[in-house]
Amino acid sequence: MSQLNITVIGATGMAGSAIVQEAVKRGHTVTAMARSENDLAALAKKVAGIHTMAVDAFQVPAEDWHAADAVVDAFATDPAHAYLHIDLATRLVAELRGTNKPRVVFILGAGSLQTGADHHLVVDDLRKLPGSDQFIAIPESQYIELQFLRSVKNVNWVGISPSRDFTAGPATKVLMGTNTLLHNAAGQSHTTAGTMAVAVLDEIEQPQHRQTRFTVADK
Amino acid sequence: MSQLNITVIGATGMAGSAIVQEAVKRGHTVTAMARSENDLAALAKKVAGIHTMAVDAFQVPAEDWHAADAVVDAFATDPAHAYLHIDLATRLVAELRGTNKPRVVFILGAGSLQTGADHHLVVDDLRKLPGSDQFIAIPESQYIELQFLRSVKNVNWVGISPSRDFTAGPATKVLMGTNTLLHNAAGQSHTTAGTMAVAVLDEIEQPQHRQTRFTVADK
Repeated sequence: MSQLNITVIGATGMAGSAIVQEAVKRGHTVTAMARSENDLAALAKKVAGIHTMAVDAFQVPAEDWHAADAVVDAFATDPAHAYLHIDLATRLVAELRGTNKPRVVFILGAGSLQTGADHHLVVDDLRKLPGSDQFIAIPESQYIELQFLRSVKNVNWVGISPSRDFTAGPATKVLMGTNTLLHNAAGQSHTTAGTMAVAVLDEIEQPQHRQTRFTVADK
Repeated sequence: MSQLNITVIGATGMAGSAIVQEAVKRGHTVTAMARSENDLAALAKKVAGIHTMAVDAFQVPAEDWHAADAVVDAFATDPAHAYLHIDLATRLVAELRGTNKPRVVFILGAGSLQTGADHHLVVDDLRKLPGSDQFIAIPESQYIELQFLRSVKNVNWVGISPSRDFTAGPATKVLMGTNTLLHNAAGQSHTTAGTMAVAVLDEIEQPQHRQTRFTVADK
């Protein structure tokens, strides 16, 4: 596998930092983007050899996206600004129309996966949880983000959803699926950030999906 | 009715130029935006007192949108770039999140309207026409644009679709609907640019719809 230029948006977050580490471990050239200079400095201390860019992803000039082989959108924000998930995806798409490079990997939530005999959306279950008004805007926005992406036929995008519980932790053996929420043999629906990172890098190095979303879980 | 600042994107097109004329006739301050300086000069000759801005709408700074009371998106392009309909809508929305002003009026096609006993989409009929590959990307993109807009709850937007045949011509008496393709008593499904312009200005002056799409036809 040749060395690739990989840019990670939201590089200091739970998913983003795991992806940065996995990409460096595999010998790729990594640009870690995040808004906080302090958080980036902490990440650079932990992961040697990365380039850091303290920037609002909405202010990045289109040329910077074009310079990458792959862009991973692991952007995260608070529920009051959940719509920024959608706006960043529409912006990246608008700037990359008609291109095949970079590949853009969108980390989506589990909310847009289907579950149950009636194939309802996970986000509909999440909405029924007590206190869901405190967070529901995030899975709702990521579902809208996926619906938008599904209409995009002239950008090289792929989406990846974790399982219902997405937490920090090292990679495990992996279960893969497409649009249905996964559970392992023990009945858990769980994905570690490490498992997600391995899935993201596997997909970047050896593309198996194009203009679609898939899901990964811990086995 | 007080004088409003109205910006029209695609001001030199069939719909845009009719909307500019109707707005000026009603005493509003109009900024006519289009890419062609020549076409704008011709419009300014025909309609006295407008401001013109020869610009790619994607290059307009956010402040310019905020300065308007209403922005009318009458953008038009060739089918090879039909996705620009979507990208302009997502861009305007991203720049106006969390605002109530300006009101943004999106001129959408008839393709996203429903028709027939089974309520199928007009775009599905259009796709079956001979030679539809030459134009279908436009109604398809405007349908995706509307689906995107329907997810937007924190921008003051409204969409307006004409009937199946949308042509130049003066305003007539008007039929109004919501999501179903309209026909008049003679069985025609027709909207003139003049009728569209009256509907747009009526809606801007006296808002009747919010974060939804309606349709107008010639009676």
